[in-house]
Amino acid sequence: MRHDGRKANELRKVEIVTDFIIHPEGSVFITVGNTKVICNATIEDRVPPFMRGEGKGWITAEYSMLPRATEQRTIRESSKGKISGRTMEIQRLIGRALRAVVDLKALGERTIWIDCDVIQADGGTRTASITGAFVAMTLALGKLLEQGKLKTLPITDFLAAVSVGVDTEHKEILDLNYIEDSSAQVDMNVIMTSKGQLVELQGTGEEATFSRTQLNQLIDLAEQGIYSLIEYQREALGDLSLIVDENLKK
Amino acid sequence: MRHDGRKANELRKVEIVTDFIIHPEGSVFITVGNTKVICNATIEDRVPPFMRGEGKGWITAEYSMLPRATEQRTIRESSKGKISGRTMEIQRLIGRALRAVVDLKALGERTIWIDCDVIQADGGTRTASITGAFVAMTLALGKLLEQGKLKTLPITDFLAAVSVGVDTEHKEILDLNYIEDSSAQVDMNVIMTSKGQLVELQGTGEEATFSRTQLNQLIDLAEQGIYSLIEYQREALGDLSLIVDENLKK
Amino acid sequence: MRHDGRKANELRKVEIVTDFIIHPEGSVFITVGNTKVICNATIEDRVPPFMRGEGKGWITAEYSMLPRATEQRTIRESSKGKISGRTMEIQRLIGRALRAVVDLKALGERTIWIDCDVIQADGGTRTASITGAFVAMTLALGKLLEQGKLKTLPITDFLAAVSVGVDTEHKEILDLNYIEDSSAQVDMNVIMTSKGQLVELQGTGEEATFSRTQLNQLIDLAEQGIYSLIEYQREALGDLSLIVDENLKK
Amino acid sequence: MRHDGRKANELRKVEIVTDFIIHPEGSVFITVGNTKVICNATIEDRVPPFMRGEGKGWITAEYSMLPRATEQRTIRESSKGKISGRTMEIQRLIGRALRAVVDLKALGERTIWIDCDVIQADGGTRTASITGAFVAMTLALGKLLEQGKLKTLPITDFLAAVSVGVDTEHKEILDLNYIEDSSAQVDMNVIMTSKGQLVELQGTGEEATFSRTQLNQLIDLAEQGIYSLIEYQREALGDLSLIVDENLKK
Amino acid sequence: MRHDGRKANELRKVEIVTDFIIHPEGSVFITVGNTKVICNATIEDRVPPFMRGEGKGWITAEYSMLPRATEQRTIRESSKGKISGRTMEIQRLIGRALRAVVDLKALGERTIWIDCDVIQADGGTRTASITGAFVAMTLALGKLLEQGKLKTLPITDFLAAVSVGVDTEHKEILDLNYIEDSSAQVDMNVIMTSKGQLVELQGTGEEATFSRTQLNQLIDLAEQGIYSLIEYQREALGDLSLIVDENLKK
Amino acid sequence: MRHDGRKANELRKVEIVTDFIIHPEGSVFITVGNTKVICNATIEDRVPPFMRGEGKGWITAEYSMLPRATEQRTIRESSKGKISGRTMEIQRLIGRALRAVVDLKALGERTIWIDCDVIQADGGTRTASITGAFVAMTLALGKLLEQGKLKTLPITDFLAAVSVGVDTEHKEILDLNYIEDSSAQVDMNVIMTSKGQLVELQGTGEEATFSRTQLNQLIDLAEQGIYSLIEYQREALGDLSLIVDENLKK
Repeated sequence: MRHDGRKANELRKVEIVTDFIIHPEGSVFITVGNTKVICNATIEDRVPPFMRGEGKGWITAEYSMLPRATEQRTIRESSKGKISGRTMEIQRLIGRALRAVVDLKALGERTIWIDCDVIQADGGTRTASITGAFVAMTLALGKLLEQGKLKTLPITDFLAAVSVGVDTEHKEILDLNYIEDSSAQVDMNVIMTSKGQLVELQGTGEEATFSRTQLNQLIDLAEQGIYSLIEYQREALGDLSLIVDENLKK
Repeated sequence: MRHDGRKANELRKVEIVTDFIIHPEGSVFITVGNTKVICNATIEDRVPPFMRGEGKGWITAEYSMLPRATEQRTIRESSKGKISGRTMEIQRLIGRALRAVVDLKALGERTIWIDCDVIQADGGTRTASITGAFVAMTLALGKLLEQGKLKTLPITDFLAAVSVGVDTEHKEILDLNYIEDSSAQVDMNVIMTSKGQLVELQGTGEEATFSRTQLNQLIDLAEQGIYSLIEYQREALGDLSLIVDENLKK
Repeated sequence: MRHDGRKANELRKVEIVTDFIIHPEGSVFITVGNTKVICNATIEDRVPPFMRGEGKGWITAEYSMLPRATEQRTIRESSKGKISGRTMEIQRLIGRALRAVVDLKALGERTIWIDCDVIQADGGTRTASITGAFVAMTLALGKLLEQGKLKTLPITDFLAAVSVGVDTEHKEILDLNYIEDSSAQVDMNVIMTSKGQLVELQGTGEEATFSRTQLNQLIDLAEQGIYSLIEYQREALGDLSLIVDENLKK
Repeated sequence: MRHDGRKANELRKVEIVTDFIIHPEGSVFITVGNTKVICNATIEDRVPPFMRGEGKGWITAEYSMLPRATEQRTIRESSKGKISGRTMEIQRLIGRALRAVVDLKALGERTIWIDCDVIQADGGTRTASITGAFVAMTLALGKLLEQGKLKTLPITDFLAAVSVGVDTEHKEILDLNYIEDSSAQVDMNVIMTSKGQLVELQGTGEEATFSRTQLNQLIDLAEQGIYSLIEYQREALGDLSLIVDENLKK
Repeated sequence: MRHDGRKANELRKVEIVTDFIIHPEGSVFITVGNTKVICNATIEDRVPPFMRGEGKGWITAEYSMLPRATEQRTIRESSKGKISGRTMEIQRLIGRALRAVVDLKALGERTIWIDCDVIQADGGTRTASITGAFVAMTLALGKLLEQGKLKTLPITDFLAAVSVGVDTEHKEILDLNYIEDSSAQVDMNVIMTSKGQLVELQGTGEEATFSRTQLNQLIDLAEQGIYSLIEYQREALGDLSLIVDENLKK
Repeated sequence: MRHDGRKANELRKVEIVTDFIIHPEGSVFITVGNTKVICNATIEDRVPPFMRGEGKGWITAEYSMLPRATEQRTIRESSKGKISGRTMEIQRLIGRALRAVVDLKALGERTIWIDCDVIQADGGTRTASITGAFVAMTLALGKLLEQGKLKTLPITDFLAAVSVGVDTEHKEILDLNYIEDSSAQVDMNVIMTSKGQLVELQGTGEEATFSRTQLNQLIDLAEQGIYSLIEYQREALGDLSLIVDENLKK
């Protein structure tokens, strides 16, 4: 039993609210336990300079935390005048992950901007951001499809992310909250599709190491979590999820 | 009749949700029409270097907008590496306004950090921020009082803010939304206490001027709006508002 | 009687030197008591990107203080690598105020750059900057008119600025110097035309509030000061002021 | 056969020169094929503020590339005034990896600064940096041991890093050069100890995904490469490697 | 004859106004032809961290130009957020030059801040800055002497600076204005004491070279100019110059 | 005899390795005593905006030091987010010096980027950079000549640089190492061609002054050093040096 009463392989409570705010093309408010993230997707009708003329789209992400998303107030990156290494890593990760399940040719010369703003943090903010961003992005692309600007929904598979780790008692656990994350010996983020294909795997020993056996046990745990998260995504997406299923059969 | 059906002296729909997120000492989610702002108050047990040893407290504010709070996506100030003049003006204004109704001596050598993050913008984000921040700050101070860290609630009066303006047809209107704000000839922000005392008045002719008669009509309009906003604050604060009323009698 | 011997409604000694330096299209050195500001106006034959093709002109201002304009040496903003909130507020205010009395259409697609550099500071630097900048700008536009690049002088009215405030003894005073400004309970900057129309009004309670009665008394005081300042501007502008008078009759 | 004649499981030519420059406590010049990196280790007798008084040491790394380390000249990060996300990711990775094989308590309140400067780049600069940095760090600590400032060599195991990937023909390959890296479908960096324990695993599908079977084949390949790299490290470290072997037995 | 009617060895008109503004300990307004610079000296009762406890003083300088000091408006360095290489070179030069004629031990643990602000530029701004700064610094130190904070005036000699160059017709000329400076083949700044000792010499071929014979002719020319400039300094300093003369005899 | 056993007029050991790394058009590794610099030259087929359309080329330089090039670790300028005044001075000097011996018209609209990266520092890094950069640049231009992109080698003369100074015993010495440089009373950098023409001369009294006699003795010393350095350049350039000799006869 974990300190919040969960079993080792149990996700926290998940909720995905769609159309959270009015301006973005796709807007999602995702809650995973006490972690809450607003994920907005914006469609821009051009690509960055280095990609122009290639007939392909692009996806880029930005990530931020409100100062009091955390227990102690964190100084704003706009006040410091620069973005931390941690923020950069996360936003590069989000963009890269989403690009793995979008047919960029079918998207055409458009950029999808993903904004993940963490309102409240309790561990797993980057994985919640990816899981929520997938829904926001799909909603935005669904709107383009509806408006006839796209012929097909250029999503090739579902995509979700979850953390797994090895706790202080050498046990593998799923979906770490902040307390667990702070004391874990091994911390791993797994990003996967609905078919169990890996998109990104980042495992880190925190002043510790891990064996290949542990690695495989952790991925087993993550895989089950991912499948549950994708169920929440399907529910949030409604009929759009059927189109993704159709794409999957191709 | 205004384009959204309101009368000239009519506020938009106001909602103040307290304890919106878990970490801050005071947390408020304020909605004014389609403008939505998270206002968090943090208490820090020290003051900035320039104030140390004076036995007085300090209040400072930061303001930001999510990129898709606006119709078009706005570039993050953290990405640009600097804060715009507009943001600086607003955060200085929020801090200055709140300091007018706090007994800084009674606060002691503490800093109250106010964070106003605009989730969705439709005009009046700075006035909604101030109105919400007053509640968040009072809740945070109420907690200190409850914990016995303060002997009295160092709030001397209620404080709310509203915009007024002169529209394209030369009429005075209350609580401008974005469309009204963009086309107004005169734009004024009024910050007032429950006794009708002015704390801050900023009136600007937008490539236009205004007469002293218009000035007085605009303040009349604002005064009524302020009194209504303070009613919403009372409701949100519950019993704490009674303590402010007591303070007012002194 | 005030500490420098002035009456409550008395301006400090004002001097406006024109053609102070040789390179700018309009150059003014304004002295108000011990406050001294160089105001230069530059005409550029294009507008910022966001205004191109609209057939209108633009006015933008920059403000700075020499490090030893102040009693204690102030660190240069170029050394700190960023502009303070106070500087941003002031330069936005100067530009906005001047735009209220310029016919931007008649100006055509040109930008007027106003540079206000405070050589010596003793309170009221922003209002002296505006009063001086109006003269520098009008001189620069007069040159364009003389060169036949403009058909009319696109100035619709005179414009001057002055501070008023409530001192520690609750009296309303005009044109505060640094000592008065530092201790004032209420501080207000008033920008007005020769017809008594308000262009900008910024009143602030410094950890205090003010009543509407006080507001009206302060504006009365400011109005008299503004009219005197405009007399100094007329004298400095010579024949050009007659053209402004003509424009006023239209 | 790969385009440079190597077999799928073949490392490029490796060379580790020690004592490359005179000032640092530990200095290494590592060559892996056409990738060349200078790795310097500096010992500082204090830790960063957030760690003071804990009786533990710290390891931090910085990474940079000379502008012409690359085929096309890259703009210096000092000229741009900020560090790229890629650089931040790499320097965080180097520091984190090294910390996994150092007994920070035994190190005492000291900071080890690792500087990895890429002189010439042809893929695998981050893995070569880690492999070289391990040697530079061990040399620096060996010097402290020799000087009697440390009682034991606080290195718990050897540590090396290598890249593996899936090429365009779906084959798993070891130690990718730049051309292979640019076209790979899956790119993975593996950091391991001499006992085959994982320290960090970062696998990324580049607009693609990978199966768990592929994952395990890639780690098999990496493991063999790591063992070879550790042989080069042993040779470079000479007698110091015997002390690490002793530590391993504990 | 030069384009402005001067002879090859003729300085432009020089004027040194003392006590130009009221706040600084030493304040000078120097005019050399159309070049005008405000030079202010500030005395601070401490030295930078790297010099504390050595019992010696320090001198540091900052240099800036008003945007319209030049024919074309120059963007402010505070707006660009960084100081140009040219500015850095000049301010390092001014500080270094002044330190050569100050007895830093006799100054004690104080910093002299020199601020040179160019109001109007027509070539030779750095040399005019040095010549004026020497006077401002001496006035500030004279004040300390008068107040009894210093026992002696810690100035060991007079110091002035002038430019010399080789014009397009291969002639050596003294004190170049902007037009001459822009087209010169060789440009040299010479900083000297009243005894003809060199303090700094910076000679540059502008896409050209110069012989040692030319070098010596240029220094001859500069030497005469320096002696004249020192006469202006003596006049501005009045009785203080007698104390410097006394120091020179030691 | 100097502390490292050299005579007053003796250079340190010089070595110039060409083709040090593979990517740049010209690559040199220069060693002068314990000072080691990598000098790379890059040819870009366009000029900066301010020079377009003039049919002339441009040369620009960047200079940097690895953190442990120095005895104490130096913070990276990329981490500080800005370039120091010293670095700016040096890179401006390198570019300016090289432009004096290149026929920019014959170069055509191309930019030569010079990157000087100091690997190990022991005094004289700027002069070693210039001496090495001349070779790297000539190699790069030689490649363009060989490829038929240039009709002639646009180098008009050899160019080398050396430091001279006055030591603590008032003796003139050549090629100062770090210890000598730190204690020298006068420090001078001389940049000259093979014909003894001066390109740049920067002499500085370090809290001291120097006479014109000393100046001439220092330049005598430098001249002999320059001629020796040019012999090393000739050797490194091989046949290309013959083409420069041909150019010299024109």
